Amino acid sequence: GSSSSSPPLTLPPPPPPPPSPSPPDGSSSPPLSPPPPSPLLPPLSPPPDGSSSPPSRGCRTWACFEDGVRRVDYVLAYHVKKTGAAHRRAARGADGGLLRRLRRSMSLRGSRAALQPRDDPEVAAQQQQASYHDDDKRFSRTQFEEKLLEMGLQLERDEESNIPGIGFLKIHAPWNILCREAEFLKLKMPTKKVYEVNQGNNIVENIRLFIHKVTAPLHPKVDCSRPQSVKPLSHPFSREKQHLGGPWSFSGGSVVLQWGSLVLQWGVRGPSVRGPWSLQWGVLGPSVGVRGPFSWRSLVLQWGSLVLQWGVRGPLSGGSLVLQWGVRGPFSPRVRLRSSAGCDAVCSHRKYFGEKVGLYFAWLGVYTQMLIPAAIVGVIVFLYGCATVDDDIPSMEICDPRNNITMCPMCDSACSYWRLSSACGTARASHLFDNPATVFFSIFMALWAVLFMEHWKRRQMRLNYIWDLTGYEEEECPRRLCVVSALLGRCYGHHDSPLCPPPLFQNEKVKLTCTDRMPAYLTTLVMMAFMITVTFAIVFGVILYRITIKSLLHFSSYPAARSNIRATVKTTAAIINLIAIIIMDEIYAAIARWLTRLEVPKTDKSFEDRLIFKTFILKFVNAFTPIVYLAFFRGRLVGRPGSYLYVVGSYRMEECAHAGCLMELCIQLCITMLGKQLIQNNLFEIGIPKLKKLLRRRKTDMDAEQEAELNKRLLRHEKDHQLGPFGGLAPEYMEMIIQFGMVTLFVASFPLAPLFALLNNIIEIRLDAKKFVMGLRRPIAVRAKDIGIWYNLLRGLSKVAVIVNAFVISFTSDFIPRLVYQYMYSPDGSMHGFVNHTLSVFNTSDFQTGTAPLDPEILGYKVPLCRYKDYREPPGSSSSYEFTKEFWAILAARLAFVILFQNVVMLMSDFIDWLIPDIPKDISLQIHKEKILMVELFMKEEQSRWYSGGRDPRPEKADPSPLLKRSPLMPPPGRDPYAHTANC
Amino acid sequence: GSSSSSPPLTLPPPPPPPPSPSPPDGSSSPPLSPPPPSPLLPPLSPPPDGSSSPPSRGCRTWACFEDGVRRVDYVLAYHVKKTGAAHRRAARGADGGLLRRLRRSMSLRGSRAALQPRDDPEVAAQQQQASYHDDDKRFSRTQFEEKLLEMGLQLERDEESNIPGIGFLKIHAPWNILCREAEFLKLKMPTKKVYEVNQGNNIVENIRLFIHKVTAPLHPKVDCSRPQSVKPLSHPFSREKQHLGGPWSFSGGSVVLQWGSLVLQWGVRGPSVRGPWSLQWGVLGPSVGVRGPFSWRSLVLQWGSLVLQWGVRGPLSGGSLVLQWGVRGPFSPRVRLRSSAGCDAVCSHRKYFGEKVGLYFAWLGVYTQMLIPAAIVGVIVFLYGCATVDDDIPSMEICDPRNNITMCPMCDSACSYWRLSSACGTARASHLFDNPATVFFSIFMALWAVLFMEHWKRRQMRLNYIWDLTGYEEEECPRRLCVVSALLGRCYGHHDSPLCPPPLFQNEKVKLTCTDRMPAYLTTLVMMAFMITVTFAIVFGVILYRITIKSLLHFSSYPAARSNIRATVKTTAAIINLIAIIIMDEIYAAIARWLTRLEVPKTDKSFEDRLIFKTFILKFVNAFTPIVYLAFFRGRLVGRPGSYLYVVGSYRMEECAHAGCLMELCIQLCITMLGKQLIQNNLFEIGIPKLKKLLRRRKTDMDAEQEAELNKRLLRHEKDHQLGPFGGLAPEYMEMIIQFGMVTLFVASFPLAPLFALLNNIIEIRLDAKKFVMGLRRPIAVRAKDIGIWYNLLRGLSKVAVIVNAFVISFTSDFIPRLVYQYMYSPDGSMHGFVNHTLSVFNTSDFQTGTAPLDPEILGYKVPLCRYKDYREPPGSSSSYEFTKEFWAILAARLAFVILFQNVVMLMSDFIDWLIPDIPKDISLQIHKEKILMVELFMKEEQSRWYSGGRDPRPEKADPSPLLKRSPLMPPPGRDPYAHTANC
Repeated sequence: GSSSSSPPLTLPPPPPPPPSPSPPDGSSSPPLSPPPPSPLLPPLSPPPDGSSSPPSRGCRTWACFEDGVRRVDYVLAYHVKKTGAAHRRAARGADGGLLRRLRRSMSLRGSRAALQPRDDPEVAAQQQQASYHDDDKRFSRTQFEEKLLEMGLQLERDEESNIPGIGFLKIHAPWNILCREAEFLKLKMPTKKVYEVNQGNNIVENIRLFIHKVTAPLHPKVDCSRPQSVKPLSHPFSREKQHLGGPWSFSGGSVVLQWGSLVLQWGVRGPSVRGPWSLQWGVLGPSVGVRGPFSWRSLVLQWGSLVLQWGVRGPLSGGSLVLQWGVRGPFSPRVRLRSSAGCDAVCSHRKYFGEKVGLYFAWLGVYTQMLIPAAIVGVIVFLYGCATVDDDIPSMEICDPRNNITMCPMCDSACSYWRLSSACGTARASHLFDNPATVFFSIFMALWAVLFMEHWKRRQMRLNYIWDLTGYEEEECPRRLCVVSALLGRCYGHHDSPLCPPPLFQNEKVKLTCTDRMPAYLTTLVMMAFMITVTFAIVFGVILYRITIKSLLHFSSYPAARSNIRATVKTTAAIINLIAIIIMDEIYAAIARWLTRLEVPKTDKSFEDRLIFKTFILKFVNAFTPIVYLAFFRGRLVGRPGSYLYVVGSYRMEECAHAGCLMELCIQLCITMLGKQLIQNNLFEIGIPKLKKLLRRRKTDMDAEQEAELNKRLLRHEKDHQLGPFGGLAPEYMEMIIQFGMVTLFVASFPLAPLFALLNNIIEIRLDAKKFVMGLRRPIAVRAKDIGIWYNLLRGLSKVAVIVNAFVISFTSDFIPRLVYQYMYSPDGSMHGFVNHTLSVFNTSDFQTGTAPLDPEILGYKVPLCRYKDYREPPGSSSSYEFTKEFWAILAARLAFVILFQNVVMLMSDFIDWLIPDIPKDISLQIHKEKILMVELFMKEEQSRWYSGGRDPRPEKADPSPLLKRSPLMPPPGRDPYAHTANC
Repeated sequence: GSSSSSPPLTLPPPPPPPPSPSPPDGSSSPPLSPPPPSPLLPPLSPPPDGSSSPPSRGCRTWACFEDGVRRVDYVLAYHVKKTGAAHRRAARGADGGLLRRLRRSMSLRGSRAALQPRDDPEVAAQQQQASYHDDDKRFSRTQFEEKLLEMGLQLERDEESNIPGIGFLKIHAPWNILCREAEFLKLKMPTKKVYEVNQGNNIVENIRLFIHKVTAPLHPKVDCSRPQSVKPLSHPFSREKQHLGGPWSFSGGSVVLQWGSLVLQWGVRGPSVRGPWSLQWGVLGPSVGVRGPFSWRSLVLQWGSLVLQWGVRGPLSGGSLVLQWGVRGPFSPRVRLRSSAGCDAVCSHRKYFGEKVGLYFAWLGVYTQMLIPAAIVGVIVFLYGCATVDDDIPSMEICDPRNNITMCPMCDSACSYWRLSSACGTARASHLFDNPATVFFSIFMALWAVLFMEHWKRRQMRLNYIWDLTGYEEEECPRRLCVVSALLGRCYGHHDSPLCPPPLFQNEKVKLTCTDRMPAYLTTLVMMAFMITVTFAIVFGVILYRITIKSLLHFSSYPAARSNIRATVKTTAAIINLIAIIIMDEIYAAIARWLTRLEVPKTDKSFEDRLIFKTFILKFVNAFTPIVYLAFFRGRLVGRPGSYLYVVGSYRMEECAHAGCLMELCIQLCITMLGKQLIQNNLFEIGIPKLKKLLRRRKTDMDAEQEAELNKRLLRHEKDHQLGPFGGLAPEYMEMIIQFGMVTLFVASFPLAPLFALLNNIIEIRLDAKKFVMGLRRPIAVRAKDIGIWYNLLRGLSKVAVIVNAFVISFTSDFIPRLVYQYMYSPDGSMHGFVNHTLSVFNTSDFQTGTAPLDPEILGYKVPLCRYKDYREPPGSSSSYEFTKEFWAILAARLAFVILFQNVVMLMSDFIDWLIPDIPKDISLQIHKEKILMVELFMKEEQSRWYSGGRDPRPEKADPSPLLKRSPLMPPPGRDPYAHTANC
């Protein structure tokens, strides 16, 4: 198929020669036939109408400059005024160098590009006042373009596009520029030498193959998914070592794509524009405070009025990928969820989107894959609970109507005494989630998390190796931020690096001191604390809602309402919680961004990390506060009959159902998880784009037919311009991390969480792929070796999960009291009598005034003593209603269990971590082998050069040292320059 | 002074030209004058007697080949038979190539080299039977030397040495070989470009300078300890980039030393000897099982009969370092403990010993430095205990004679009732170590450990940068192990690497499968378990000793003996423990080595890691089992009066003194620590070498005068040959790690531990320096980026320390009971009544038969009720002698404290870890700056080469691709080869 990569052993076929010796113009060529030789059109001429026919195989209008030879590597978009048509025509008529033409066309006024990644109201508000400065913008664009030319790039303008008001600047990077940049970036290129890859014949490999065979029907038929048996040796590109190079110079798709990412990277580092920027800056300046996410890219967006755009099916992707995606579509079964080695979905993702996005999909694949066993075990644990629910002695005792136990009222006045047997349903339901299998499952999940991290580390290492990133070091580029707000009061600068974008302002090199940063840090601290308090307040509000509704419903006279009290309250409260979480999530994301901007981080990476960290903290607290309350606080701050705890006047704190809060925790988790996933992830991700499209159509007053007509006329890069910009991977990761938290943190109370997560992810991975490919502009390919801060967050979560699960098992569930009863207090070693043991006695005459039930004889008899769930001394003794010895013993047992669980699981995790090597054995062997082969290669070269010929390609003229002359590379024997004394 | 390095900005002076154009023979030159031109002596002539005069500055006899020009880079020693003199003379007379001479002299028989690093009895036993195979050895030596020559090295033999029976083989590495190897090793060399180093003007730097100023009188006056303000840019050596090179080609001492390490490394990788090795192997083979630490080096030692030796003051060190050490000596105050940046003690260590030893000294320095604040705080905590001992209410209550509390007997029959006030002394002493300050101190030490790790990580990073190791990747060389024992039954192989020693045997390439390794792993597991059991048995033995001695002493009639019972028993038991620990340590080290050999690890690094891990486990268990027993088990398994726990018949388990076991734990720690340090570290390290020297003198029947006479006649490398071999750093590190464990693990019970450790280390660092410089042969310089597995062990220890300290505070000390009493049970919120609260009541009529005291009225009155320390119900109630509610409440409090302490400290540790960046800011800035400068340098070079001249140094003939011809490095415009379609 078209998606298979060429076999690496044979030299790839030479690229098709240019269709004709004279530079052709493919704009009017018939589809899929070689373009006929046509006379060279004048530059900057608009393509004839109706040129939207499928591009030919050679060089398409949108893929090449107008000479039909030079390839378009990069497209920038900018706003132009529609009124300049006459002027433009004049400019077109004039013949001359590209640069001159560009300068002339600069007299046109450009309008501000309103292409912020997120519709920023600030920017919209400033568009009016910014229009004064169109001249400045035009000038800056000229400067920008001059810089591009100076750096050796070749440009072509296209202002006659089909999209009114948008001009395009096409950029071509010549060969020598690419070579130089490749050397700086140390891009690894395949050499001529190929070697055989060891087909691991160990057990692991066999298991892998077996799994692959079993799941074969699920996989798409991609020929290249077979692991290749030979691999070319790769070496950092160097023009001096070019003779070692294999056919990389112009071969296979992957190399061209790598060059592509090179151009993109270069584009970012590109031109240095200096000039009257402080003036320009004044416009956006003090009135707006700190400005947007001012990476160099967005600066260009805002100031240069140039919109950076990289079309989805842009020039670099060639055509095969388009076809592939277009035909199979992201939803077809062929788009694979999993990523085995070789050229598969992840690989395509990487080639098309760059390593960073590729890593995201790989990570998501590994995570989803790892969820499968977790989901299976979770379901088994759940089924175990279902199967044993009838053998559970405590719930049998509760349900047994012969045990006529009268319970104390659950609230003041309104509630009355009730029979324990009425709690039969909840007790049985609780057993589903509160049984010994749950303990096993939470240990399992703690170790699962560690295994997942290890598995990912190894997969990452493998990908790094396959993607030739082993030697790559990330260059931290300074973040471009000019801060003129009252808060910081100065322009913030950066340190020069040729690998980073050059400075844009003369006065940019100001270093922020601690004093400058203090206000921002303080603001961050205060705001974070405030937002967390807000979250707590919301949760507390929901609690109050529950309490009030409950007591109101208790007073209502409809028996139907009263009987459904619990279910109604629980469900509405959980839904309110969910809505609050979803709304606050959006608010918190905005606040975190604002706070991070205030802090003026030095580099883009640091900006991203800080933003992610803040967002994570806020979203995490937001998502988990209600759950933590349910697990650890609800029902614990209740007091005892006769001495209840009251909040906000006379509202009693909530109690849990008789069988513990685990059941309610489970419901809350289930609703939060399903709701968040369904609404936030899927509905938002599908619905919002649709809505936006609808709005846009409404705005432009076009019906669907007109739009289809227009779309047909648009060229590829014009179509792509209408797609949304790529907003980064942070939201996608964040969603998954919160889900990971749900899966691991409270897994003791909800063993089905992995199953829900798995189902969600199977949809999610496809939705994401569809969104990235069809819905967004192609992102700039970014190289990355790892998933960065996300790994640390995952690690942190899996550590916290251990202690949280320990507490859930020992405090939220009844596991420990049962164990203690069975081994310490049970007369016959069975659970019989456990229910009675957990219930304390209350003398109804001890009720405080006004709290005794209004309807004391609702059960048909007078109640002298009622029971409640606690370990307290019976009335009448000297220490009545104080905690009993059993209470303390059980508390000690609970705490001991926490210590034991935490340390055992931590030890096991560390052991697993230590046991599994970070680098897969076959990869480390292969790396070693490559090193050997590389040395051998050089050794051979060495011998042929130094020993036989003795040819020295580098004359000594460059060396100023007189010593060098005395001792050239081959010193005469007996004249070793090395023979002098060392000087410490 | 002679120790200052040359300023890097100016070009270093060219090395002194060779003393005369004709190769001189410096052997008979007068001291300190240039050697007179003398006729070329016949090769291999012995130096004239009395040539031990101080070597001249130019080229000394021992530093150069006999031509006086070629430098000696490496000396190998081997055994020769003394009887071969005539033959040798004949060989000398014959004129011819070095190789021919060497071959001829091979007819001499060599005797086996018995130069095992540790005097191995096995080897000694085999020396007789091995003598059959002298011919084989001679042949193998020839092969070895041929291989050396083949690889381009130049050799010179010296069999007429002053040491009878030892011949020396001097090796010279010519310039071109060095160049090639430097390229492979990617040695970083300074370029011509120098840049200014940012003198950090931040707070940290100022603090550093202030500390430096304050402690200035303590530092030696080393000029070069100032941080340098300029630094040459360094770049991995490449002959193609030679024109970039600064004067590195032949300049300053450091470079020569770096070359030196190069030669050494090369030496290891060196020659590949193939031949009838299986025969040779047969000798050492099946009868002895798995052979020694068979690195390539030791193989050479054993089989080739060549002794690898690198003299302490050998040729590479020049002379300045010798002088420096000789004059100042390791004990002079000038040898610095601390290591600030620049060229100081650590730096010298590194230059002389290589990076691995340098890192050890740097680590020891950082550790010692970090111990200073810990020791200070520890002393303050101790003093706080001393100061508050009179205000401690519980001990006041115990000491108050008015509180006439009668205590139950501490043992059966022999002991009797006693008054609580007699425990006054121990109670007061206990307060010294059991007070709230201790809790603070253990939190402090947990964070101290984290800070230490962080500090070390940063220091290591800094050293890596200063030592130009930033890009260095460690090459894992396969370990040479031929295993022919019954256990494994085959020869174990390796994977080839040109950076590693080549294979020695044809049949070496056998891969061990899991099945092969299983017996070894099982043996290891069983042996480890067995040894740990032995340790437990020893500890149990000591416990039994204490119990029996105690009861014996109780029965003794001497009142003096009875009054000193406790002190006597404690001290003798601690000493027995100490001796057992020291003896077992040596045994365990040997066993760990044996077990690791059985496992046949693949690489040398893995061998070292496994050995260290095993040794650590065994030594750690050995050192800490008695302490753990004391802290957590003693006094807890006692039972209660009337129902004591008995072991081994009728021996009651020991109890602690009334005030808890903390006091005894403290004594045990103190004795173990001081004893181990004094005896094991210092006495052994000073005493054993002295003893060995004495024995050697006794053996050779020489008196001191004769020896001095002989020593005068010896040349440098001959003298060095008599020094002991370098045994590796593992014992030194191990000692320190165990000490680190003592300092952190039980610091809650012994706040003076850091002080003792500090005092020990101040001596230790000097002793080690002296030993390495004066007492041992110069080790082969090994490059290393980090301290390897030791860092992981330290990390593990500091993690374990948190939980151990939590348990010590909550269970061993009385901290929690006091707290609980004060806040839950105390009537007035003070500690008054605490002692009474902790004592339970026992009815003396409940004694079992035979256990009641023989002398019940020793106090002068009949005792109906006695008290004992526990929380149990009083007699008479339904649940008499059962645990009270207070017991469970306190247990819960203890456990809660453990959870709280562990998690809070872990959180704080992680926070500190996260807060402190691993790479110091100035270093990361400097690395960044270097990268920029490097790119700029290449950019400039680039422009001058590619744009102006367009000269292509590499003709295209090497490239087979037809594409390359169509598109050379500067493609014609409009002919961009990059213009073809990508293929996925």
